[in-house]
Amino acid sequence: MTAYKTYDAVKRIAVLGCGTIGAGWAAYFLARGYDVAAWDPAAGWQDRLRAFIDNARPQLQAVGTATGREGKLETLDTPEAAVSGADFVQENATERAGIKADLYRRIDGALGGDAILATSTSGLILSDLVEGVASAPRFVVGHPFNPPHLIPLVEIVSSKVTDPAAAEWAYGFYAHIGKHPIVVKKEVPGHLANRLQAALWREAFNAVIDDLASVEDINAAISQGPGLRYALMGPHMIFNLTGGKGGIRASLEQFGPAMESWWTTMQATPSFDDNLKSKLIAGIEEEMGNRTIEDLENERDTRLILLLKMLRETKGA
Amino acid sequence: MTAYKTYDAVKRIAVLGCGTIGAGWAAYFLARGYDVAAWDPAAGWQDRLRAFIDNARPQLQAVGTATGREGKLETLDTPEAAVSGADFVQENATERAGIKADLYRRIDGALGGDAILATSTSGLILSDLVEGVASAPRFVVGHPFNPPHLIPLVEIVSSKVTDPAAAEWAYGFYAHIGKHPIVVKKEVPGHLANRLQAALWREAFNAVIDDLASVEDINAAISQGPGLRYALMGPHMIFNLTGGKGGIRASLEQFGPAMESWWTTMQATPSFDDNLKSKLIAGIEEEMGNRTIEDLENERDTRLILLLKMLRETKGA
Repeated sequence: MTAYKTYDAVKRIAVLGCGTIGAGWAAYFLARGYDVAAWDPAAGWQDRLRAFIDNARPQLQAVGTATGREGKLETLDTPEAAVSGADFVQENATERAGIKADLYRRIDGALGGDAILATSTSGLILSDLVEGVASAPRFVVGHPFNPPHLIPLVEIVSSKVTDPAAAEWAYGFYAHIGKHPIVVKKEVPGHLANRLQAALWREAFNAVIDDLASVEDINAAISQGPGLRYALMGPHMIFNLTGGKGGIRASLEQFGPAMESWWTTMQATPSFDDNLKSKLIAGIEEEMGNRTIEDLENERDTRLILLLKMLRETKGA
Repeated sequence: MTAYKTYDAVKRIAVLGCGTIGAGWAAYFLARGYDVAAWDPAAGWQDRLRAFIDNARPQLQAVGTATGREGKLETLDTPEAAVSGADFVQENATERAGIKADLYRRIDGALGGDAILATSTSGLILSDLVEGVASAPRFVVGHPFNPPHLIPLVEIVSSKVTDPAAAEWAYGFYAHIGKHPIVVKKEVPGHLANRLQAALWREAFNAVIDDLASVEDINAAISQGPGLRYALMGPHMIFNLTGGKGGIRASLEQFGPAMESWWTTMQATPSFDDNLKSKLIAGIEEEMGNRTIEDLENERDTRLILLLKMLRETKGA
């Protein structure tokens, strides 16, 4: 078993791929005082990354993530240069197996012998991507949620060859820097949280296909109702409070049979055909009205920051 | 078509069934200045109802629901007495078809000719409950979410015999008193929001059965991640922001195929057998630690109130 660095010895983090996810990670690591060595293959990425970080900085201060001293950002021309000398690597390349596998082989020789690499892959199976990669035992999934500089969740998944101590190190490191890591014990498409989301989406798309309600009302069915509770506790803990003072046992007794019978009527799996697509697009455009995507993102982030602040301030209350 | 009351003419609301849901409605109506005529068949219900209202009063003030003057609470010995003279009825009897159908026949003659009755049924089909009930055209589903004095969502569903004007009246009345009504256009088990919840629960229970993660980590997979977004916008609007500046069209293109492939691996429907039950109970007890159900309810309500306040204060921001 390799002995990995102490968390205090981590100074420099490589961020490979600086789209929305990578830029979010870069902003987060910088705010926590780490130097970031960034690389991206796209033209003009450096300016976009700096703009993202400038926008995220006050958000990270508002939400209480920022430590005193911001780290230094360095932009590199190659992924090898970025990972060279890095204590930790967060990889956010395009979500395609071939692209990620090629990148891993390319950086394999440049990666430090005790550096851990975490991939932000939202649904790929890491074991499928690391054939012939010598440093693969130090590779793990570290999957964040959008926007990654604000949402605490990080899913840790090991590949078949991941050193258990490396996965443990990554888990501890994310916790150390203020994230909320969880362990997904098996490699399945979409890990865990995206499967839970996809399950809700499946039924939300079915509701559009079946014309059960307007797109706007389907949105409100979550955001004005159960969605308010999902920000406060997860599905099993909500179920625990559904049965009153009797807790989970009472819930299972009272609501189990009804839920089983509802599930028998929820067996359809939608496909994104032209009918569903056009209904979704029309419904979203109607709900957006005059608002742009930027308006909605700003509204989301403003509220998300206030929500995260409130949750932090009421912790253990 | 019947001409219904103007909303300003509504003074007295009957609340039938005063368990958690009925008590929540009673507290809400009183805070909005309506007189409430309450009835429940259980022994000692009056004291429990008054205690609930006393507890909810400061919450309703904090969240901004309370208007200046609180209505008067009257407790009645029979449902006929409660509905007599009521301008609107919110029915929250035990979630069993026979109990509700019997109650409807019992109050049928006492209900005012232009009074609307809304049932809080969380999953029953209203059309199945109103056989032989003369006032059924004025019956509609008005399904709230727990705790009903705090969560804004109300699902409106018409039965086969509901007067469209009565459903419209109920929709408008809930909006008038500060709730967020939505229209579910078809009668299906669980209406809409409970089906969306049950879809997420199905996969959350599958994750327990498959040992994909601990119960606590499955909870965090929502509450520390996507759940934070569900409090701010519904699933389709979240999907709209998943594709960056390209909006819903880009999301469909980028994430549609992956989601379709995940769904093919999410076809199992769990059943609440002893294995699932014991894993859930053990996981919840471990996560609860020393906290009681009351502690968790208080934590939820404290945070929910702050969340609702924040959402109100940032409306249109």
